[in-house]
Amino acid sequence: MTTTPDASSAPITVLGLGDMGSAIARVFIDRGHPTTVWNRTASKSAPLVEAGASPAETAAEAVAASPLVVLCVLDYEAVDAVLSSVGDAISGRALVNVTSGSPSRARATQQWASEHGAEYLDGGVMGDPPDLGSGQVMLPYSGSRTAFDTHEATLRELGTPTYHGTDAGLASVEFMAQVAVGYELLIGFLHTLRLVHKEGGDVAEFAERVAGSVSDYPALLTAIGEAVRDGEYPPDLGPLSVQSALMGDLVDHRQSLGVDSVRMREVKELMDKRVADGHGDQGFSSLSALLDNQQ
Amino acid sequence: MTTTPDASSAPITVLGLGDMGSAIARVFIDRGHPTTVWNRTASKSAPLVEAGASPAETAAEAVAASPLVVLCVLDYEAVDAVLSSVGDAISGRALVNVTSGSPSRARATQQWASEHGAEYLDGGVMGDPPDLGSGQVMLPYSGSRTAFDTHEATLRELGTPTYHGTDAGLASVEFMAQVAVGYELLIGFLHTLRLVHKEGGDVAEFAERVAGSVSDYPALLTAIGEAVRDGEYPPDLGPLSVQSALMGDLVDHRQSLGVDSVRMREVKELMDKRVADGHGDQGFSSLSALLDNQQ
Ligand SMILES: NC(=O)c1ccc[n+]([C@@H]2O[C@H](COP(=O)([O-])OP(=O)(O)OC[C@H]3O[C@@H](n4cnc5c(N)ncnc54)[C@H](OP(=O)(O)O)[C@@H]3O)[C@@H](O)[C@H]2O)c1
Ligand SMILES: NC(=O)c1ccc[n+]([C@@H]2O[C@H](COP(=O)([O-])OP(=O)(O)OC[C@H]3O[C@@H](n4cnc5c(N)ncnc54)[C@H](OP(=O)(O)O)[C@@H]3O)[C@@H](O)[C@H]2O)c1
Repeated sequence: MTTTPDASSAPITVLGLGDMGSAIARVFIDRGHPTTVWNRTASKSAPLVEAGASPAETAAEAVAASPLVVLCVLDYEAVDAVLSSVGDAISGRALVNVTSGSPSRARATQQWASEHGAEYLDGGVMGDPPDLGSGQVMLPYSGSRTAFDTHEATLRELGTPTYHGTDAGLASVEFMAQVAVGYELLIGFLHTLRLVHKEGGDVAEFAERVAGSVSDYPALLTAIGEAVRDGEYPPDLGPLSVQSALMGDLVDHRQSLGVDSVRMREVKELMDKRVADGHGDQGFSSLSALLDNQQ
Repeated sequence: MTTTPDASSAPITVLGLGDMGSAIARVFIDRGHPTTVWNRTASKSAPLVEAGASPAETAAEAVAASPLVVLCVLDYEAVDAVLSSVGDAISGRALVNVTSGSPSRARATQQWASEHGAEYLDGGVMGDPPDLGSGQVMLPYSGSRTAFDTHEATLRELGTPTYHGTDAGLASVEFMAQVAVGYELLIGFLHTLRLVHKEGGDVAEFAERVAGSVSDYPALLTAIGEAVRDGEYPPDLGPLSVQSALMGDLVDHRQSLGVDSVRMREVKELMDKRVADGHGDQGFSSLSALLDNQQ
């Protein structure tokens, strides 16, 4: 166990000053950390320097200024570009990379850091830049346990950190899985707004009613997660025999309006198959048993 | 404006005593309504008769007993079978059909009711049978305004009623649109549980974290509804230029694990197109502009 330094006095370097990197730097400046900043386009550091940050001429110079380096650029192309210019200057530092990307890119960066003598922590920011610094923003991390333990108090200033394991790819798995579930809801919602519009409904009023229904989901999602883990499927959302009776009409209705039905057709086929296989008394979660055999 | 009779003394007939029909009948019996029940398979009425309901030999006999008739069977095949056996006995009654189905089936039933001298109200039950009778269950209705106004107090005993217009199909539009948004979330969630499992994560713990994130959605859904209504797209969820940078990695990751990516590929393509068209500063809601041109 390493002793955690008094968080607010710990010097920090932030590389990348887009919307998110700037929000990160600002939290640290506001909490009193000596903060060194660098961005490819140097002009973006001006408001942060105004607020008290020290600008660095190069990424390598910025890295030299602090034992903790937070990297937040657009994507892994940018990560690779920045890190190749940093090179051995990273040695002995903790590198915390909160750029979004895939597990394999995170693992490759962990490998690079290890070859350059740095502790590597990969992270993801689940929230918008303006919300940074509030506990509601979740930040999954994985990689060096030492780096996480040493800097946890500092990282907590950005939002609520969770640690997912020494494999640097695991924070990305969490981030991309969470993001995907959100996009699944939102793209399905966008298609359905068109259906409502085509039927003459008010999409904003419909959206408000959907927003009101969302409070039913936490209990349902948790129950489905347990059902899938255990492979035991209660009739969640009612028995499939009843749910499936509706799906043909639902698909036909969307198709008659020229509204996307790709997922609804899939759900119908999966339900029909479960019912045909004698599982009509089980619930929605049991569709999972069919996905396991899909490619 | 018709005077609403004292709700709890109004006689009611319930046709169809499956899980949902039985739950409906039980609410009315518990609130003191003289309740007449009928089901194709007569034995299902036994527990309700035990609780105080009067059984009828035929659907036509049941309908003759009350000015308000609630119909809840599996689907519209069943609705048609029951109503053809009822025939002219429905004349002068209010027929409230809460069987799930498409707008066109609801409209055809409205037509049938009108030809047989009945007021017709179509409805949908958004909730599970055990929750019936609580205000949290929403029931959209459409069709006869007279029937809705006359029986609103009675219908409110089942859950919170909303009235969507005189076209009997509109309650079904609302019901099917709400159901579809829920299934979009849930099927995407099931696929993503496989991703988490394949990466060695605990699906039940992941589900709990997703359940925790759901509290972010009401505000986002409402904002997206307004953006789509107005055709003005702020950078919700961040600018598309930033969101899209992640999507290639996200799709590759899912494909590398053999996990479904149909919606994520669609989201990526739509984002890429918006960015290429010079709208990278707008947000997720702006993908809606592309859907309008889809078939
Ligand atoms: N914005 C959000 O709402 C949000 C939410 C959650 C997560 N995130 C994640 O946070 C990360 C940053 O997002 P952002 O909103 O800050 O993006 P942004 O505002 O577009 O900023 C992009 C940053 O990346 C830098 N960059 C791009 N290519 C580079 C290269 N080849 N070499 C060096 N630097 C390069 C840019 O430098 P220049 O200024 O020189 O172009 C800029 O600092 C992304 O991974 C994103 O997914 C963002
Ligand atoms: N259960 C839920 O969680 C839930 C939630 C929301 C909405 N709903 C909707 O409520 C409706 C009823 O669902 P449920 O759960 O009560 O279904 P259920 O338990 O399967 O009962 C089906 C009912 O339909 C009757 N039926 C089927 N075919 C018939 C026919 N040809 N002629 C006459 N009666 C026929 C059955 O009679 P027999 O007993 O003679 O077979 C039974 O009374 C459905 O439209 C469903 O979508 C259900």
